[in-house]
Amino acid sequence: MQNRGRLLIACADQPGIVAAIAGFLFQSGANIVHSDQHSTDPWGGTFFLRTDFEMPNLPARAPELEREFQGRVADRFAMRWRLSLAARRKRLAIFVSREDHCLQELLWQQRSGDLIADITVVVSNHRRLQPVAERWGVPFQHVPVTPETRAEAERRERELLEGHVDAIVLARYMQILSEEFVAGWRERIINIHHSFLPAFVGAKPYQQAHDRGVKLIGATAHYVTEHLDQGPIIEQDVERVDHRCDVEDLKRIGRQIERVVLARAVRWHVEDRVLVHGNKTVVFA
Amino acid sequence: MQNRGRLLIACADQPGIVAAIAGFLFQSGANIVHSDQHSTDPWGGTFFLRTDFEMPNLPARAPELEREFQGRVADRFAMRWRLSLAARRKRLAIFVSREDHCLQELLWQQRSGDLIADITVVVSNHRRLQPVAERWGVPFQHVPVTPETRAEAERRERELLEGHVDAIVLARYMQILSEEFVAGWRERIINIHHSFLPAFVGAKPYQQAHDRGVKLIGATAHYVTEHLDQGPIIEQDVERVDHRCDVEDLKRIGRQIERVVLARAVRWHVEDRVLVHGNKTVVFA
Amino acid sequence: MQNRGRLLIACADQPGIVAAIAGFLFQSGANIVHSDQHSTDPWGGTFFLRTDFEMPNLPARAPELEREFQGRVADRFAMRWRLSLAARRKRLAIFVSREDHCLQELLWQQRSGDLIADITVVVSNHRRLQPVAERWGVPFQHVPVTPETRAEAERRERELLEGHVDAIVLARYMQILSEEFVAGWRERIINIHHSFLPAFVGAKPYQQAHDRGVKLIGATAHYVTEHLDQGPIIEQDVERVDHRCDVEDLKRIGRQIERVVLARAVRWHVEDRVLVHGNKTVVFA
Amino acid sequence: MQNRGRLLIACADQPGIVAAIAGFLFQSGANIVHSDQHSTDPWGGTFFLRTDFEMPNLPARAPELEREFQGRVADRFAMRWRLSLAARRKRLAIFVSREDHCLQELLWQQRSGDLIADITVVVSNHRRLQPVAERWGVPFQHVPVTPETRAEAERRERELLEGHVDAIVLARYMQILSEEFVAGWRERIINIHHSFLPAFVGAKPYQQAHDRGVKLIGATAHYVTEHLDQGPIIEQDVERVDHRCDVEDLKRIGRQIERVVLARAVRWHVEDRVLVHGNKTVVFA
Repeated sequence: MQNRGRLLIACADQPGIVAAIAGFLFQSGANIVHSDQHSTDPWGGTFFLRTDFEMPNLPARAPELEREFQGRVADRFAMRWRLSLAARRKRLAIFVSREDHCLQELLWQQRSGDLIADITVVVSNHRRLQPVAERWGVPFQHVPVTPETRAEAERRERELLEGHVDAIVLARYMQILSEEFVAGWRERIINIHHSFLPAFVGAKPYQQAHDRGVKLIGATAHYVTEHLDQGPIIEQDVERVDHRCDVEDLKRIGRQIERVVLARAVRWHVEDRVLVHGNKTVVFA
Repeated sequence: MQNRGRLLIACADQPGIVAAIAGFLFQSGANIVHSDQHSTDPWGGTFFLRTDFEMPNLPARAPELEREFQGRVADRFAMRWRLSLAARRKRLAIFVSREDHCLQELLWQQRSGDLIADITVVVSNHRRLQPVAERWGVPFQHVPVTPETRAEAERRERELLEGHVDAIVLARYMQILSEEFVAGWRERIINIHHSFLPAFVGAKPYQQAHDRGVKLIGATAHYVTEHLDQGPIIEQDVERVDHRCDVEDLKRIGRQIERVVLARAVRWHVEDRVLVHGNKTVVFA
Repeated sequence: MQNRGRLLIACADQPGIVAAIAGFLFQSGANIVHSDQHSTDPWGGTFFLRTDFEMPNLPARAPELEREFQGRVADRFAMRWRLSLAARRKRLAIFVSREDHCLQELLWQQRSGDLIADITVVVSNHRRLQPVAERWGVPFQHVPVTPETRAEAERRERELLEGHVDAIVLARYMQILSEEFVAGWRERIINIHHSFLPAFVGAKPYQQAHDRGVKLIGATAHYVTEHLDQGPIIEQDVERVDHRCDVEDLKRIGRQIERVVLARAVRWHVEDRVLVHGNKTVVFA
Repeated sequence: MQNRGRLLIACADQPGIVAAIAGFLFQSGANIVHSDQHSTDPWGGTFFLRTDFEMPNLPARAPELEREFQGRVADRFAMRWRLSLAARRKRLAIFVSREDHCLQELLWQQRSGDLIADITVVVSNHRRLQPVAERWGVPFQHVPVTPETRAEAERRERELLEGHVDAIVLARYMQILSEEFVAGWRERIINIHHSFLPAFVGAKPYQQAHDRGVKLIGATAHYVTEHLDQGPIIEQDVERVDHRCDVEDLKRIGRQIERVVLARAVRWHVEDRVLVHGNKTVVFA
């Protein structure tokens, strides 16, 4: 993966974009491995593209390539864009509270090679999952949070993370982050909500689902914004339940869905497959 | 199916219920074909049972059997119960507006023998689907509805249905029924809501789903109560969608889910597989 | 859709393909609406592309565009390719025997606008489904087949179809077509096999599935080749079953899956979304 | 769960079975918590029943209850039956080779309380997963196997297991067990086969699936019999794949399905939810 790059682009749709990008990459000696594109509307919509390519000596050539792409292509189409190097694995902080299923899943997938990223730290407002992190050899940071100390706790978290971490995964972290904190990690905090949003926003969604007598329960992975449970949805899935399931059964089944949905969303994020468009996502899965 | 009966029971859970029912059926010469039971809580909850049985000469013996069951079993456990004869096919009225997919599905399943019921009338506030009903040889009744004429329209519908129909299926019927009308058909009106309730209550759920950027869309079949979109859920299902789907795509995919979900709910209803418990259902599928 | 075109391409993968195609379309005044590509292996594999584009006055300009594309792009990369005009709806013949569920589904989807194609004829070795075809206003041709008359029957079918039909859908047609017949409709005959291939090849797959005690049953839509049940798979799906299902239940559930899977495959085919690669398909769904 | 019992029954179907069992349990002071039954055919078929009940002081009363049930009910209907005490958790041996995903899943579910059983030993023909077992505090036994030493290895395994273990889980164990070994653990060895049986029996199913171009891949959990890959299926599931998936992707996706399917089958087994009927299973899930 040493010479593998990913070009991520968003701009107003207009004729000639693909020709310009493809021409640039070809002339630069890049070999396109895979490419996905999407237009919200070919006339006046937004165009999104993700291109996987190989280029000899890419890490050394990347700065020059970026300069040239800016000048020859990006400026012309007023693109938001970035070049991501596969060789530079994303570094993740995982925030947890008391439940370990999402954490275990991410740690296991990371070790097995299914999740290509570094998990650099586990942060928790409880000590309960410290042994889990340590069993897998990942540093654990205990940052208690109370309503009174939240600002101080977030200051400490920022110190721990800034410059060391590329994205934060809220793996059943039961504290609400402040608007200021979230603003510093825009489109880089992924949360798992234990319901099929927007069906059961707020607290105790499995209890809510049980009370309403639904026949499917689900989970939703989304980017965190300042609006609770309202950020862009990355992935959702459901499982069938029936009248025999009590709330504990729903929670047990829910844990399985949460694990799968969060791990999928995190994998897509670290592989640069998720582009945000307003309050939605384009996922080139 | 001439001698097939179904015993449907709900009562406070307590020891000895199954023994009493099984003993009664055995002594009456019934052969239990299948039996399902559910208790919301074995201590203080509600007990539900559905038993399929065969008994020689059942249609003639049914009145006597009902009397005996009341006296020897039902009174003792304060049961709500009924005996349903498979030979007496349920008669359905299907209410539609302009969209035909749910109607076509029900008509086709009825003709193919997958839905064991009689479709006795199609009622619509438009004339658009009259040819569909006629093509399948089902009487069509045009009952226009405006806010001013709703009471009169419902009076006419009651005339058409009472004594002739056992249940009403709202197969994309876009009018709201009055509380009075609904009260007369308690647990006998099935609606298909074109969303995964309670995610997108109200109008234009596919537009709502598109705006929210969900990754799954669904449909919900439920009994109609006086509370709009709040009745007991019978069945739900979902289908995966992605960023490439516009609202029209969601509607197209949604039509497929609606057809399947509604047909499943109607089949369960006519086979006496759905027992209502407060605002939930027990479905012995 | 008057000016909508689709360019379908397959060639040995090599640098510069996308740049050449995108450049050609841009210079020709085409606006790319959507584009999908796939490479079986960027080094030495096969490259596939499907591009949806809009071009003013396309139907009139198509012949010239084809000539230019051949000379300026296709020859250089030794492409297999074709230009398909959305305005030229594909014409389908549907072959059936006695079961109507797949036929009904295709007729309904065609009428509802979900399947954008013309169904020009229904061909059957029985008269049983003649009323279905006629109810929808589609010509019905009865072509009886016995082992002795197969050659004659196929000759008659070829007469009926050649020049009038673009693809044949075997919608539960229970006769085997000869190698000669199949050779004339390469990659243009779609069959629905009532099992999850290759699990239960051959006859009576639902009986086979029941005997084996599987927990899921499925259906497979595939292109027909001279090797029975072995052609390139276009789509598959499954449904959960359990010990309570007898063979008749499996058939009933199977009919639902068959309808959905076949309709999906036919839709993808008529929208030029399926490219064949050896014994596999690339589906740009 | 101290006083929770499960009665598992199979016998020729005939009138009066349920009445006899329910009457016996009622007179013994048992409170039925849940009950499932199934008849392969009410006339001449086999009847299966699983009843969950509570009885004061059950562990002490169990021997007497078993004697009475035999005399008063089981003999009369020639039942195969057993009483299982929930308080007596089943003891599992997990056999593994080199891949850890199924092992990790079972260990995690056991610790989280989703799998109510004791994992008493991990047995492997390799040393590779020793650290995994030890990290979770489970004894690890290395039993190398070569064609020459298989008999000796199985002798050693029998020593390790007999009297200490109730069931064996083959969690991606890549050795074939001898007929003699299997005969000693009839309906008590669960294997996960990495395909949707019977689609791809034998070796390298993901390679086979890739070669055939299937659109879904699956996994199958089954009881092991002397016929390789032919034992009664307990559970199956599938996941959608497409042309972009290479064999490694299929394996990665397959690992997720294998984990889920095996864990579900093991949970059902330890909760006495699986009854074997010839080469099929009745699963009261």
